[in-house]
Amino acid sequence: MRLGMIGLGKMGYNLAQNLLTHHHEVVVYDVHSEPGEQLAKEGATAASNLEALITHLDSPRIVWLMVPAGAVVDAVIDELIPLLSEGDIVIDGGNSHYKDSIARGTKLRGHGIQFLDVGTSGGMEGAAEGGCFMIGGSREAFEVIEPILKDMAVEQGYLYAGESGSGHFLKMVHNGIEYGMMQSIAEGFEILEHSPFAFNYEDVARVWSNGSVIRGWLMDLAGSAFAKDPKLEGMRGIMQSSGEGKWTVETAMDLQVSAPVITMSLLMRYRSLQSDTFHGKVVAALRNEFGGHSVIASDSGKE
Amino acid sequence: MRLGMIGLGKMGYNLAQNLLTHHHEVVVYDVHSEPGEQLAKEGATAASNLEALITHLDSPRIVWLMVPAGAVVDAVIDELIPLLSEGDIVIDGGNSHYKDSIARGTKLRGHGIQFLDVGTSGGMEGAAEGGCFMIGGSREAFEVIEPILKDMAVEQGYLYAGESGSGHFLKMVHNGIEYGMMQSIAEGFEILEHSPFAFNYEDVARVWSNGSVIRGWLMDLAGSAFAKDPKLEGMRGIMQSSGEGKWTVETAMDLQVSAPVITMSLLMRYRSLQSDTFHGKVVAALRNEFGGHSVIASDSGKE
Amino acid sequence: MRLGMIGLGKMGYNLAQNLLTHHHEVVVYDVHSEPGEQLAKEGATAASNLEALITHLDSPRIVWLMVPAGAVVDAVIDELIPLLSEGDIVIDGGNSHYKDSIARGTKLRGHGIQFLDVGTSGGMEGAAEGGCFMIGGSREAFEVIEPILKDMAVEQGYLYAGESGSGHFLKMVHNGIEYGMMQSIAEGFEILEHSPFAFNYEDVARVWSNGSVIRGWLMDLAGSAFAKDPKLEGMRGIMQSSGEGKWTVETAMDLQVSAPVITMSLLMRYRSLQSDTFHGKVVAALRNEFGGHSVIASDSGKE
Amino acid sequence: MRLGMIGLGKMGYNLAQNLLTHHHEVVVYDVHSEPGEQLAKEGATAASNLEALITHLDSPRIVWLMVPAGAVVDAVIDELIPLLSEGDIVIDGGNSHYKDSIARGTKLRGHGIQFLDVGTSGGMEGAAEGGCFMIGGSREAFEVIEPILKDMAVEQGYLYAGESGSGHFLKMVHNGIEYGMMQSIAEGFEILEHSPFAFNYEDVARVWSNGSVIRGWLMDLAGSAFAKDPKLEGMRGIMQSSGEGKWTVETAMDLQVSAPVITMSLLMRYRSLQSDTFHGKVVAALRNEFGGHSVIASDSGKE
Repeated sequence: MRLGMIGLGKMGYNLAQNLLTHHHEVVVYDVHSEPGEQLAKEGATAASNLEALITHLDSPRIVWLMVPAGAVVDAVIDELIPLLSEGDIVIDGGNSHYKDSIARGTKLRGHGIQFLDVGTSGGMEGAAEGGCFMIGGSREAFEVIEPILKDMAVEQGYLYAGESGSGHFLKMVHNGIEYGMMQSIAEGFEILEHSPFAFNYEDVARVWSNGSVIRGWLMDLAGSAFAKDPKLEGMRGIMQSSGEGKWTVETAMDLQVSAPVITMSLLMRYRSLQSDTFHGKVVAALRNEFGGHSVIASDSGKE
Repeated sequence: MRLGMIGLGKMGYNLAQNLLTHHHEVVVYDVHSEPGEQLAKEGATAASNLEALITHLDSPRIVWLMVPAGAVVDAVIDELIPLLSEGDIVIDGGNSHYKDSIARGTKLRGHGIQFLDVGTSGGMEGAAEGGCFMIGGSREAFEVIEPILKDMAVEQGYLYAGESGSGHFLKMVHNGIEYGMMQSIAEGFEILEHSPFAFNYEDVARVWSNGSVIRGWLMDLAGSAFAKDPKLEGMRGIMQSSGEGKWTVETAMDLQVSAPVITMSLLMRYRSLQSDTFHGKVVAALRNEFGGHSVIASDSGKE
Repeated sequence: MRLGMIGLGKMGYNLAQNLLTHHHEVVVYDVHSEPGEQLAKEGATAASNLEALITHLDSPRIVWLMVPAGAVVDAVIDELIPLLSEGDIVIDGGNSHYKDSIARGTKLRGHGIQFLDVGTSGGMEGAAEGGCFMIGGSREAFEVIEPILKDMAVEQGYLYAGESGSGHFLKMVHNGIEYGMMQSIAEGFEILEHSPFAFNYEDVARVWSNGSVIRGWLMDLAGSAFAKDPKLEGMRGIMQSSGEGKWTVETAMDLQVSAPVITMSLLMRYRSLQSDTFHGKVVAALRNEFGGHSVIASDSGKE
Repeated sequence: MRLGMIGLGKMGYNLAQNLLTHHHEVVVYDVHSEPGEQLAKEGATAASNLEALITHLDSPRIVWLMVPAGAVVDAVIDELIPLLSEGDIVIDGGNSHYKDSIARGTKLRGHGIQFLDVGTSGGMEGAAEGGCFMIGGSREAFEVIEPILKDMAVEQGYLYAGESGSGHFLKMVHNGIEYGMMQSIAEGFEILEHSPFAFNYEDVARVWSNGSVIRGWLMDLAGSAFAKDPKLEGMRGIMQSSGEGKWTVETAMDLQVSAPVITMSLLMRYRSLQSDTFHGKVVAALRNEFGGHSVIASDSGKE
């Protein structure tokens, strides 16, 4: 099939390659010209702007957005609307908030344009070699693009989940689970690190990856990481987060659902951003006040 | 090889079958005679007591215990000691506390007997068809039994972890991680259940099992469970625990390590044992006291 | 001083009485006429609508809102704006979100009207007999109303906290702390309830209220509650929440601050709304899948 | 009354002074001679060893231990047993584990000696000027020493809680609650510290101490601490713990009770002991593996 791919960052670039490998015709565009030029060498048609990209597509046009969530998605959609015709299909494959996807679906339907919100998982490797896709929105549009999904996904790796927003909702919750699983694995290794034993973590990750109850891709990746740096001495334990975990926690609270483990995973990420805390100082100060417990003096320049 | 298997419950029985399949000579014993008789039909030699079991083995004798952790392990070991000779090997494949395993290793070494603490993972299916084994204790003894482990485990599914106790320590932490991963997955489905969408959980588990970051055996099992009961309406949400999760949390605290997600997974299991809580009543009563917020009257017979 | 009090619910009514006791002239209004009529007997002037209320005030007019947070506050403010003049003072004493208070401050300033956001604590008793007030907004306006605050508050029980929003921000965080303190106390009694001892909780609350590190008003209230119902058998452990705790958690996450205890207090409130959970079913089902652990069948009609 | 006080550390010294102020006859002993010499100037009789201390007491002798929990208590009791007679009373006023107190009660009863386990709260100030005492053990012995307790405690500040162990059980849970309350207060100030406002924390603690729902001694102490160091810049946020919080969490788990907030308070103390974490590195490494998210390089010498 022929489709347009807008946004050629880590994920978009890999998806475009994946599609080319499967002999689809891919028209690509990014604000930076280099990735498009690179993909052109692999068979893609590089467009220099959105208007050019659209002219290379046939009705119903299929446009896959892989741009940063938030304002950029809205800006691209607003620019696309006058260029598209009734029946065309816009796909947002990024990590958009499901409420935004519901709103965008409504807006595009008002212009006769079909919209699919597609949560994409599997990391860069998955994007390149076979990922996992959760699709919400028009079932009719889904059926049109299903051959593309079939090629980009691993076997059984895509699901039409339901109405607009359901694809990104599933992806959001997937990421919440991911936070919890990663923190679980990480806490396990933390306990090993403080244990009286001298474990080889690459070996441990390998044995846990083979035959155990906790085997899975994250454990495989732990093995890869320890293979490169056996004690992870080259990095600091600062855990960034890109938003979906926070959305999961906020959504759970809006639904009055208790998700303590996913929530605590997020809070530990925030905690890791601080080398010292104010709440710690307050507790230390209170212990000193009532019990005369000594405090540890701050050491200017250390924190 | 020839070895004795003591304890033919769910795990021991399956391991014995696994060994027979791989053409090992297995002498079996259990306090109940039926499983031994059954295994005899598949080629095992059924012994009617420990003494008889030992007489069927050659030096160095290899005895694998798969009996309930705690006092039973000690009782069996005490009964075995006078029956065994220097150089014989006792293996505890159950879920023993690693500190008990260290003590048992020391005790048996005092009698010239080698001891291995082996954590076994992979569930009943793994025991039968290929599991995961974490081994602590004498390296020399490990090398003797390695051919057995190679056959019982999936490929790369066993690890000599180090000195006495390290095998059960690894298994304990493995189970702590398992608690956290299971709770993470479960919270994700809880959020889906309260969402505005109507997801098919079997489909969701399937797509998350294929190509996603959170793919793994636990997600596969979630798919199996939902295939049998799409909304799990046939069961209550009571989460039992068998001890290793609690040991992980206690060990982390002894090591002054913070493992909030594993800990919270355990606490949610305890919380699930109560349909109502006293702490909830106290908070409701306090809100009533200061703010006049109404309380919900208890309804005798409902809880 | 003379001021108008709009909203005569539990808190507004008690504050009006408090002011009358201190010989202030209070013009009152509520959508229901009864509380105003009642207060008129105690010396208040009851107005039948906002316009009437305003005509009873002198410049600079002081109007205290004690109405439900959210849309009602905006509606009342919109109705007041055309009735007020430059230099008049509007006070929101309810539990508004601090961001709304910032926006309302800006809006009212645009009309030359001064705005104060006042967080009020101390419960109904505090409103009636001396409470705690946290004030944000124009310092000039604060100085005008300070005599009123001095009379309504206990000694040292009011604070000008800073610019618009800071009063409600302080109150929000106060409530977050309150959630954590209440849950802490409640968990303590839960442990006592499951202990091998037979404690009298009223006695325990009393001794902890006198001389201990954890003495304070919440412990006093626990004593009052146990005096009425020694085991709280008359109520269910369902912990409602009215919003400020959730705002505190959301605000902490927006600030990328880890507040695990306040957060967990909120999540336990949500957990208490469910007598059984879907996540519990998922974990029970997974344990059954890999380990053959039995599940507890649901009992239709019970949950 | 006349009694012996063994152990003259921060708490024992202050209690002895408190007793002297109330005109009791106090025989004191400590392994270091200085505090006894000092108290002798205030009217105490300083003994140079346990035997001497006992000879200064009349039947039934009352001996109050204020020594470090654990082995020291046992050592002192073992040394006392041959020196004491039937009907004498031994009081352990330290922070002993309630299970040890149950065992000590049984042991001493076997020698005809009465035992009381007394949890002491109120900090050093409470010990000196009026504290809070939770008493378990023989009711008869309690009635003998009640006049002493009445004088040492604030009004209503002592409670006979029941059989052996119940005094220290109550104290243990009191400390668990204290952990939760301190962490709650501390998290509140942490949120203020990261807020867009510039609060004066001494002022905030003062207003929250007067008339608010969260008023209490800990908030008073927060005010004192901020009065000395407005931003607590002189100290690090390292939160030590002395054991009772951990015992509370362990006891809750043994009782299969979920106490998430008290537990999380303890875990945050452990977390504060680390400036960087291994689990953080694992999560950072995993994010790098699947998503190519950059890690922050460790900076040797910084951690």
